[in-house]
Amino acid sequence: MPKPLAVALGDPAGIGPEIVAKAWERRRAERLPCFFAVGSAEAVAAVWGGPLAIVSDPAEAEAAFDHALPVIRIDRGSEVVPGRPTLDGAQNAFDALELAVGLARSAAASALVTGPVSKAQLYAVGFSHPGQTEFVAERCGVAPDKVAMMLAGPTLRTVPVTTHVALRDVPALLTTELIVAKGRTTIRGLRRLFGIERPRLAVAGLNPHAGEGGALGREEIDIVEPAIERLREEDAEVTGPHAADTMFHARFRSGYDAALCLYHDQALVPLKTLHFDDGVNMTLGLPIVRTSPDHGTAFAIAGQDRAEPGAMIAALAMAAACAGRLCPA
Amino acid sequence: MPKPLAVALGDPAGIGPEIVAKAWERRRAERLPCFFAVGSAEAVAAVWGGPLAIVSDPAEAEAAFDHALPVIRIDRGSEVVPGRPTLDGAQNAFDALELAVGLARSAAASALVTGPVSKAQLYAVGFSHPGQTEFVAERCGVAPDKVAMMLAGPTLRTVPVTTHVALRDVPALLTTELIVAKGRTTIRGLRRLFGIERPRLAVAGLNPHAGEGGALGREEIDIVEPAIERLREEDAEVTGPHAADTMFHARFRSGYDAALCLYHDQALVPLKTLHFDDGVNMTLGLPIVRTSPDHGTAFAIAGQDRAEPGAMIAALAMAAACAGRLCPA
Repeated sequence: MPKPLAVALGDPAGIGPEIVAKAWERRRAERLPCFFAVGSAEAVAAVWGGPLAIVSDPAEAEAAFDHALPVIRIDRGSEVVPGRPTLDGAQNAFDALELAVGLARSAAASALVTGPVSKAQLYAVGFSHPGQTEFVAERCGVAPDKVAMMLAGPTLRTVPVTTHVALRDVPALLTTELIVAKGRTTIRGLRRLFGIERPRLAVAGLNPHAGEGGALGREEIDIVEPAIERLREEDAEVTGPHAADTMFHARFRSGYDAALCLYHDQALVPLKTLHFDDGVNMTLGLPIVRTSPDHGTAFAIAGQDRAEPGAMIAALAMAAACAGRLCPA
Repeated sequence: MPKPLAVALGDPAGIGPEIVAKAWERRRAERLPCFFAVGSAEAVAAVWGGPLAIVSDPAEAEAAFDHALPVIRIDRGSEVVPGRPTLDGAQNAFDALELAVGLARSAAASALVTGPVSKAQLYAVGFSHPGQTEFVAERCGVAPDKVAMMLAGPTLRTVPVTTHVALRDVPALLTTELIVAKGRTTIRGLRRLFGIERPRLAVAGLNPHAGEGGALGREEIDIVEPAIERLREEDAEVTGPHAADTMFHARFRSGYDAALCLYHDQALVPLKTLHFDDGVNMTLGLPIVRTSPDHGTAFAIAGQDRAEPGAMIAALAMAAACAGRLCPA
């Protein structure tokens, strides 16, 4: 039997605790594998009246999962008030992430699922990485340029080459090397984690109509096409550069396994337009499986029983499926 | 009874003639109003075996429409071969556009629908406008900065503030004035052509997460927010700047009548992802109604009976609906 999944609850004042508890409620209907929460048991109890099982390790979690939500408890500092983030809460989220990563790294957990955190709060307690992804990569001993963020929904997977940077800085950041690195990580991730032997990768252009042969920008010719040539040395079917506006409708996207996009919104706009409620963020290039729901802490609705667990359920299901398929890097 | 619609066939070697003929075949099922083609009758006959009625004016077209596709004929020069664009064909498309615009301007036609053209071919025969939209604007005596391109599908309308320019040039082109001008044209177009008394306009940000308060770019603060302030002086509900990735899913888009986007793909990616087959391009800010199907000449499939007329049918239906509602500027 595979090991359970470790779920870091994220910020205790966000919707993380609520959506993890709701996912546990639906464990049978959604055929979810055994998982356990890592984080503030107090935060879960503050928003949910269901049964909690305080456990000290993943093995105990397996025994408890059928009748209660297992929690490896990290509680500290001030009281948790849903919707009101605090520095104690941020430290709690940080500690929970650290412990959950360690359990996945040691193979005590089969995969890592991370709940939503507030970066601004984390920075205030000394977190020095751009985001959870970079933190996890470092703890796994992987250089940040070797990992890639994949956004995955039921009918589309996208990977942005550049992520959280101003749009005006994107053209200068795009290099053939960077596109090749993210493309390789994507191809290998599709093979290792999704079991696709010969992945089909569609690469987007940067400019309207993919530059119209240079009339609307030269990045396609100077940067993207050479990257595609090099990616064709992988055992994969690599196409592009495609005009971004015509590559995400149903007929086109059925022809590839992932779209390699050049900037944040090029990847995120089609993904969230189609899969706002069931999009999963997955980190490719790690020795472990790591997913997270593709939404934020939603402090504004925390504690009101309004949070939808769909994306958390999708993140748990995808983590379990990928962990079951994981083959050596 | 309203006047018929004038349909410029576009490039005779493209799919324009085929999709106009197919739209006529479905005129009853789709409840299309009377329309007539302007352009190469030879091009229609080359790809379609149905009945043509060569007419000399819109009134004759009305009499013929029930039993044949009325065509105001413009044939010149070399033979039409579907899929093989020629300079004669480009000149033909140019002449057809000129005549169709004139008929709409003179109110002999109630609206103008334009088929797909090849800009490269048009430039070679002396067409000096960036596209058909700018040509139509000039013939209507409207400055190009007073018109806006709206992309409209059944569940989403978007208007790009900048259009066919390289992505790296977008930040420098964006000004508060330009956003206000396009926003005003959009608000007034929604009122005049779509009958929406108090339009709801959602304005997109430029950067990931709409700049995250300046951390990922300052255009939202320096340029977009002041534009939104000024647009609120219109009789409209104007919101934003919104993070582009979260504003196009079903729940969000039901809350506005149009999204004002800052660059081509920001408007076109969500529109074509959702409405690839029934997206309509409409020009706002003109004294006439002008629509076109939101796709190109598709020379690669011309003459093979493979072209889908869905977008042309949608363009005809939207033109008719808007012409029927048109109120004074």
